[in-house]
Amino acid sequence: MTPVTLCYGNVLGPLLGPDRGPDPAALEAGGELCRRFEAAMAELHRRREAGELGFLDLPDDQALARQTGELADSFGQWFEAVVVVGIGGSGLGARALAEALLGPFWNERSDEERDHFPRLYFLENADPDTTRELLDRLDLRRTLFNVVSKSGGTAETLAQYLIIEDRLRSELGEEGVRGHLLFTTDPSTGPLRGLAGEREVPALPVPPNVGGRFSVLSPVGLLPAAVVGVDLDQLLDGARRMRDRCLTPSLRGNPAGLLATLLHAADVDRGQRVHVFMPYSDRLRGLALWFQQLWGESLGKRPTGSGSSPRRDPDPGAGPSPGDVQGPGDPGGVGPTPLAALGAVDQHSLLQLLMDGPRDKVVTFVRVRERDEPLPIPRSHPHRPALSRLGGHSLAELLDTELRATVEALRRGGRPSLTLEVDRLDAHSLGELFMLWQVAAVLAGALYGVNPLDQPGVELGKRLTLGLLDPGGEEGDGPPPDDPQWSV
Amino acid sequence: MTPVTLCYGNVLGPLLGPDRGPDPAALEAGGELCRRFEAAMAELHRRREAGELGFLDLPDDQALARQTGELADSFGQWFEAVVVVGIGGSGLGARALAEALLGPFWNERSDEERDHFPRLYFLENADPDTTRELLDRLDLRRTLFNVVSKSGGTAETLAQYLIIEDRLRSELGEEGVRGHLLFTTDPSTGPLRGLAGEREVPALPVPPNVGGRFSVLSPVGLLPAAVVGVDLDQLLDGARRMRDRCLTPSLRGNPAGLLATLLHAADVDRGQRVHVFMPYSDRLRGLALWFQQLWGESLGKRPTGSGSSPRRDPDPGAGPSPGDVQGPGDPGGVGPTPLAALGAVDQHSLLQLLMDGPRDKVVTFVRVRERDEPLPIPRSHPHRPALSRLGGHSLAELLDTELRATVEALRRGGRPSLTLEVDRLDAHSLGELFMLWQVAAVLAGALYGVNPLDQPGVELGKRLTLGLLDPGGEEGDGPPPDDPQWSV
Repeated sequence: MTPVTLCYGNVLGPLLGPDRGPDPAALEAGGELCRRFEAAMAELHRRREAGELGFLDLPDDQALARQTGELADSFGQWFEAVVVVGIGGSGLGARALAEALLGPFWNERSDEERDHFPRLYFLENADPDTTRELLDRLDLRRTLFNVVSKSGGTAETLAQYLIIEDRLRSELGEEGVRGHLLFTTDPSTGPLRGLAGEREVPALPVPPNVGGRFSVLSPVGLLPAAVVGVDLDQLLDGARRMRDRCLTPSLRGNPAGLLATLLHAADVDRGQRVHVFMPYSDRLRGLALWFQQLWGESLGKRPTGSGSSPRRDPDPGAGPSPGDVQGPGDPGGVGPTPLAALGAVDQHSLLQLLMDGPRDKVVTFVRVRERDEPLPIPRSHPHRPALSRLGGHSLAELLDTELRATVEALRRGGRPSLTLEVDRLDAHSLGELFMLWQVAAVLAGALYGVNPLDQPGVELGKRLTLGLLDPGGEEGDGPPPDDPQWSV
Repeated sequence: MTPVTLCYGNVLGPLLGPDRGPDPAALEAGGELCRRFEAAMAELHRRREAGELGFLDLPDDQALARQTGELADSFGQWFEAVVVVGIGGSGLGARALAEALLGPFWNERSDEERDHFPRLYFLENADPDTTRELLDRLDLRRTLFNVVSKSGGTAETLAQYLIIEDRLRSELGEEGVRGHLLFTTDPSTGPLRGLAGEREVPALPVPPNVGGRFSVLSPVGLLPAAVVGVDLDQLLDGARRMRDRCLTPSLRGNPAGLLATLLHAADVDRGQRVHVFMPYSDRLRGLALWFQQLWGESLGKRPTGSGSSPRRDPDPGAGPSPGDVQGPGDPGGVGPTPLAALGAVDQHSLLQLLMDGPRDKVVTFVRVRERDEPLPIPRSHPHRPALSRLGGHSLAELLDTELRATVEALRRGGRPSLTLEVDRLDAHSLGELFMLWQVAAVLAGALYGVNPLDQPGVELGKRLTLGLLDPGGEEGDGPPPDDPQWSV
């Protein structure tokens, strides 16, 4: 099988215009981008040796995969529906995997059409309408709830858990509760781990050195995948092969290195701070949302200064970061804005902005070469050219042609893009894509000089939420000041 | 019923910090933002008098709404499923409306649960997997295809039409084709209009002065809404009332004026070019995608110079536009990057970047005050504070508290936000929201000095697509140059 390929000619000067992209010599030994890459790789190895990058080792953890697969097999045959209760990194990866491999109508299929694998739902948001309607629709006697939280303390997920536990108890009795729950959480600490011990609920571990947005190849993603029949061996084999490619010390041979170095350079050297991710396949919409979290939450933060990041290039094309100059005491942070898009749909939405708007964007396309069925377009209406010229082609060909035309139109406008080429959407290629972006995020973190593994900026909101819910409690900073009369 | 309210205190200097937002005096008569607004309103009135802004008059076109409603009634009772075949502006508005009002599980409900209204599908992308699977799943004898294209010549939609026509003919015979099609297109020109005449297919008109992304209140959005029972009178009444508010000559009384003026000023005066739209309701995810197209495609372009746009402010906080300084011959264009987000989900994805990343963003939240059912969180597990502190609240309260906490956390960081407050998600409030943003887009177009009604940047991609599909044909610029060996 052909590995996932990264095509990067359309970000480089020769194809894009000499002022529009780096000279390829920058990628060779001794070149500026190569030097940055090497420093970032050193930082990655330092973090790996410090035991911080558990996600790199997940493809080798056959015991964990087997444990997850066996639990999935033993549960899968009993249940008609599995609900993954988890938000952010606890849901996005599993959903990306399921959408890519199951297609858009899985839950509308009959039992036979699903080969008796369960329906698969994701309860992410603390939205009362969605939560209530989903719970009302399910036959709880035939439903398994996989409650996922790395820390075990995520407020949205615990609130939904309390509602689910109550419903299970009233419909199935105390004994029913336990048999319909499966937790995925830290192996030793946190409220969910405590509950699992107390109530004898089976619980899969998330290795402590695997953070939420890097957990798709842990039981967080593996359990939901296995329960609907995804081949875990293929998924992990794809991830393993890509990991090995991404540890290549040569920039020109390292897809994650090229992705991270070129996207970072587009931002800091050319002010291209919006990183668009645009697969041409409905099945990859979930992957685009997973990317958005990985890229945004790993890189959008204040530099620690401990990284090996090169300083911002003084090239006037870059411009100052708007935040960096507002108020001497608070320079703002760094990090690209990840924008999830979908081709060809968003040619009718965002392409106008990509073609004619500010030159502050770089697009990463995903091209899927083979489809299950290309879907021929019948020849018809010979007198109507708008129709007849489409006949004889296939819908797959039209979609792929639109992708190639969009890449080319951007290139002619001097607007950069990268393309990830994938032979087929299967477990193996998904494993490759997940690993590629995860390594790229760690390398990009080093390039930006930030810690890609933390998310300190969300803590204040959490504390304020608890303070507003429980004004007399110990936590929280109290309610915000009264709204003033600025409203219409 | 309470009208939709725009709260804008959290973009202004007094609440955000004096260096972080405009002084409220700028909004008063004679102030800088008020002057910009008045020039933009003059431009809006000029366009309206020139007959360019047909969307403003749609709420008054009772004949068109009645025609649409009657057609929907006559079709609705015959069909078990309605498929809207349309891309971009031909699908996003109708989908936003359906998702907001029908909720997430409409198509999984039984006939009785849907009150015998049809299931509603959107076939947007030219994706062969989705298209084939949907067509395979439908009972074509009970399915209506609403093919929507303003121009009548959209390649993706016509390709899908040819496939559908062929399937209808082979399953139902020549007579069957006609009875299962309904077009929505230009009243007099284009391939779809021609076909409608030739084959006696019923066809609803899109008024010629209503562009695709401004067409949700025309039959483009009304037919799919009416067919599933949405109250068109309420929808149009909401739109009419909001339109009248948005024509108020005073800035402080004009919600679209404030929205456009404050978001434009955030960009050009402070470099806050990423405009995040973040409703706290799963049902408004479709509205966020609709906003993304409206804002991106209306504003992302090269200034015409004919607008009444103020020049960019020399405030050093703004920084040069990165595109503006790259290559003297091609200055790049203007326009914010619209980013669709969803609360509280994206607190676990994008909030880190919003809190700690570059100060180049402004967020517009949507708060829904009332829910069908708040969904109480049971009191339980008194010894586990992470669980027990949630009990006694409701999921609606948790979600709303998270919204308020996020607004406040951003404000404390000096990061601006606006909030649209909506009492309930119903046809009336959706009509208000659609009209509010459409008027705001026209005003913002005037502020940026661009034509908000065109999309010239997508033409090259279309020509290249046709050239690649039919290299011997008259259209197209031929294939792109061969790929070089920049790949890994």
